[in-house]
Amino acid sequence: MRYEELTIEGRNPVLEAFRAGKTIDKLFVLEGCQDGPVRTILREAKKGDTVISFVPKERLDQMSGTGKHQGVVAFAAAYEYAEVEDILKNAQEKGEPPFVLILDGIEDPHNLGAIIRTANQAGAHGIIIPKRRAAGLTATAAKSSAGAIHYTPVAKVTNLVQTMEELKEQGLWFVCADMGGELMYRQNLTGPIGLVIGSEGEGVSRLVREKCDFITKIPMFGDIDSLNASVAAGVLAYEIVRQRRFAKPQ
Amino acid sequence: MRYEELTIEGRNPVLEAFRAGKTIDKLFVLEGCQDGPVRTILREAKKGDTVISFVPKERLDQMSGTGKHQGVVAFAAAYEYAEVEDILKNAQEKGEPPFVLILDGIEDPHNLGAIIRTANQAGAHGIIIPKRRAAGLTATAAKSSAGAIHYTPVAKVTNLVQTMEELKEQGLWFVCADMGGELMYRQNLTGPIGLVIGSEGEGVSRLVREKCDFITKIPMFGDIDSLNASVAAGVLAYEIVRQRRFAKPQ
Repeated sequence: MRYEELTIEGRNPVLEAFRAGKTIDKLFVLEGCQDGPVRTILREAKKGDTVISFVPKERLDQMSGTGKHQGVVAFAAAYEYAEVEDILKNAQEKGEPPFVLILDGIEDPHNLGAIIRTANQAGAHGIIIPKRRAAGLTATAAKSSAGAIHYTPVAKVTNLVQTMEELKEQGLWFVCADMGGELMYRQNLTGPIGLVIGSEGEGVSRLVREKCDFITKIPMFGDIDSLNASVAAGVLAYEIVRQRRFAKPQ
Repeated sequence: MRYEELTIEGRNPVLEAFRAGKTIDKLFVLEGCQDGPVRTILREAKKGDTVISFVPKERLDQMSGTGKHQGVVAFAAAYEYAEVEDILKNAQEKGEPPFVLILDGIEDPHNLGAIIRTANQAGAHGIIIPKRRAAGLTATAAKSSAGAIHYTPVAKVTNLVQTMEELKEQGLWFVCADMGGELMYRQNLTGPIGLVIGSEGEGVSRLVREKCDFITKIPMFGDIDSLNASVAAGVLAYEIVRQRRFAKPQ
C-alpha cells in the first residue's frame, strides 16, 4: 500500500485523480453546479462508487487548503483498500479458519486505527468497513494503527449485510456484542468467524444485527453504558484468541 | 466531583485558586521572575505539591487565552482526585478483594479516559496515576471516560513505587504486562491485585517493573510491536474479570 495525498481540489486535479485510478473516499461538489466538467467528474465518481455530497460554497471553502476548489473537493484514501477475497485468501494461506472484523460504522479514525492494530495482533485476517457513515483509511487512522495498516487488509464494501450473506455462503458465522447476548466466556467463538463491532454512538444497526448468528455479551459491572468501541473490539477479539488458541477443548 | 475551569492566568487569580484549595496540576512561571507576588505563588504551589515549570515568555503567551498572564499560568484539574485510601475503601465496601489499575505514565488524555471507562465497567475499584509525565483529569479525559470519571476514583501520587510498596503492605500483588512474561491465561490473576499499564511509548518503567510481583503477557501474532495502551488495559482487565468471576476453580 502506498501513501497518497489526502485532499484534492479543483476540477482538473480531481478528474485526473479519478482517471489515474486513485481511490476517492468522498467527493464534495458545489450544490446546483451542473456544467460540463462537473458532470464529467460526477460520471467518473459514479463508476468508482464514490460517496458524493452536494454542499454549499462555505463548506467547500472550509475544506479547501488553497481556496481554489472550483466547486469540487475530493478526499482520497491515504491507503489502498483490499478486497474481501484478499482477507479470505490471507486466512487460507495461513491454514486457519477465517477470523474477520466487521466494523458497522466506526466513525472515529483513532478507533479505526486502534482496531486495525488489535486485529493485526490478535491474528485476525482482515477488516471490513462500510462505504458510508464510517471512517476510512485516512492518515489519522494509519497513524493510530501504528503500522498495522501495512499488514492487515481492510476492505470497504457498499452493503455490509450483502457482504455478510456472501461470507455466510463461504462458511463464516457472525457474532455481535450486545447486552441481550450470552456471556462471551460461555459462547463458542471458535471456527470461521466474523466479529461485528457496532458504531460508537449507535451500536450495531438493526439489519446487520439480524444477520448475526449469535449475540454475545462482555460482562459489565459499571455505572455507565458501554466500553470505548476499540476497547470492546479488543476484549472480544482476545476472547476469540483465547478460545481458538488457548482453551482446553471441552 | 465538580467541574472546574481549566486554565487560570494572572497573579491574583492563580493565588486565589491555590488559597481556595483548588487542585492545580501544573504551574507555569516566567523564567527569572523572582518578585514578591510570584514568590508567594511558588510557596503555595510547593505546599500543594504542584508540578512547577519555569518557561520563556513565548510559551506563556501561547498558553494564555487573554494575553494577560502576568508571568503565571496554572492548569487546574477538571475533576477532583481521590485518595488511594478511597480506592481501598471502595473495595472494602463492596466486600471484594481490591482491583486497582496503576497507569505508569499514560500521556494521552483520550487513553486515560478510555481506561477510566474500562476500569468502571470491569469492576475495578480505582485508578492510580503519577503526578509527573502523565495526563491528568482534564476535560478531554473526562469526555473520553463517557461519565465513568464520576464513579471510578482516580488518585494522583508523587511516587508510584512508594505507593506500590504501601499497597503491598495492605496485601496487594502487582502484575505488569510485558513480552517476557507468562501468558495471561496461564497466570493466576485472582486475589487483591494491582494491574500496571505502561506508557504509550516506553511501556512500564524499570523501577515500577522491579516492584511488580509477576509479569504477564498478552499473546500477539502480528507484525507490529504492541497494542494501543487503552486496548491492552482492556484486554488485561477483562482477563482479570474472567479469572475472578467466571473461571472454574482449578
